[in-house]
Amino acid sequence: MSYPFLKGHGTENDFVLLPDADGSVHGDLSPERVRALCDRRAGIGGDGVLRVVRSAAVDASVEAEWFMDYRNADGSVAEMCGNGIRVFARYLVDAGLVSSKDFPVGTRDGLKQVSVDGELVTVDMGTPVIGRDTWVRVGRGTPQAALQVTTGNPHAVTWVDDVAQAGPLREPPDVDGELYPDGVNVEFVVRRGARHLAMRVHERGSGETRSCGTGACAAMVATAAVDGVPLGTAYRIDVPGGELSVTWTEDDRLLLTGPAVLVAEGSTDL
Amino acid sequence: MSYPFLKGHGTENDFVLLPDADGSVHGDLSPERVRALCDRRAGIGGDGVLRVVRSAAVDASVEAEWFMDYRNADGSVAEMCGNGIRVFARYLVDAGLVSSKDFPVGTRDGLKQVSVDGELVTVDMGTPVIGRDTWVRVGRGTPQAALQVTTGNPHAVTWVDDVAQAGPLREPPDVDGELYPDGVNVEFVVRRGARHLAMRVHERGSGETRSCGTGACAAMVATAAVDGVPLGTAYRIDVPGGELSVTWTEDDRLLLTGPAVLVAEGSTDL
Repeated sequence: MSYPFLKGHGTENDFVLLPDADGSVHGDLSPERVRALCDRRAGIGGDGVLRVVRSAAVDASVEAEWFMDYRNADGSVAEMCGNGIRVFARYLVDAGLVSSKDFPVGTRDGLKQVSVDGELVTVDMGTPVIGRDTWVRVGRGTPQAALQVTTGNPHAVTWVDDVAQAGPLREPPDVDGELYPDGVNVEFVVRRGARHLAMRVHERGSGETRSCGTGACAAMVATAAVDGVPLGTAYRIDVPGGELSVTWTEDDRLLLTGPAVLVAEGSTDL
Repeated sequence: MSYPFLKGHGTENDFVLLPDADGSVHGDLSPERVRALCDRRAGIGGDGVLRVVRSAAVDASVEAEWFMDYRNADGSVAEMCGNGIRVFARYLVDAGLVSSKDFPVGTRDGLKQVSVDGELVTVDMGTPVIGRDTWVRVGRGTPQAALQVTTGNPHAVTWVDDVAQAGPLREPPDVDGELYPDGVNVEFVVRRGARHLAMRVHERGSGETRSCGTGACAAMVATAAVDGVPLGTAYRIDVPGGELSVTWTEDDRLLLTGPAVLVAEGSTDL
């Protein structure tokens, strides 16, 4: 069976999109098919799959027309993805499937408000939770101070003079296992100037990635908190795959802004 | 400008195909566009690009209807690719662009005869040249005996008890720089049984890959030569990305047989 797909990315976090408005094409989307699609050699390749389905087809109680059925490349179900939802929103607008450029998207982590403005898409990522002082350790190095932040998923943010300082990051950094029983994403953050950060991220289950939306949010929150920067401030955050911006609003919410690009569309029978 | 593409692979050596029969779409195929297409995050992703063009559109003296304009992922021009030409042949047959399943393909390394038989494609890779005894060394290990073989490009074939023995292969193995002034592909070969090998390969310029067609040919030739196996023999060769077969014919030519799969087709404006 041949079915349509698109490929797109947000700051080089890349996805295979599967249009499936009424849920009839991939109602049985299996982990095997997700893995086959995301396989970078034998498939199309991606960090995950975004199935585009009307909420009514999956759960009529979701108060958004469209639902982002997100799967990780390993086939597992995921709640949210800050880069993926921008690509999802880009597709809805480009395909004419929404009447406004400002709309809610249903996710397993609840409704997310998105706003498409030219090449950029902004997502309301909700309210962050600042946790405890902690530490991270890379390889056999010295443990270094870090701050626990939750932005939908758990993070440990630490600061370095240069992003190269974290080394090749082939192994997960050591962290406090009691604080992070389910693993953690670790951000290595450099202060590049006022309201300007650069970071690298090691994601649990994925290794180092080119970008992490919730990680950029965590890096911003941790730095603003440590540096005593007031709410209502926007930071630019350079990631290996591009540039993001995070605003911590007066009402304690995080707005993640970044590019979202569709690069190909076609059909496959994977 | 949106233009058509396909994605396919041979034993997980993967390619972006660009249909361009009369050369009017990509007459100016730039290294930048090749890199953009092959980018695994921001593009479609592939080890290289196979532009499908009529020979008449590029060089009327080529005695084949179709010419494989092969480019490496870094944008450089390449002469031949034993996995790529099988995918190229698969496309010509599936698209109905050839009237027979046994036909020549023009390449920068001259005419190559291909034969499509169901899921498998066989390519005549020409006559190998066995060179000198040499050595390879991985990391800080002991130099180990190897045999120089040329199968279109230069190889150093060495034997191990287990393919894991070569380690992670993050760096190119050390070789005799005088014997290989332009670099070399190194094959680590395990004898799995009579006429049955397994191998891993480190390709110059690419690092470890899932498969290398000329490398499988070199592994077969070197082993058959060392083991005194007569011409006219076929070997099965397991590579990380699948299974290949190499026959060294009575008239001293190498026939490489393996799968070739198209997994997606569509359009892009990369």
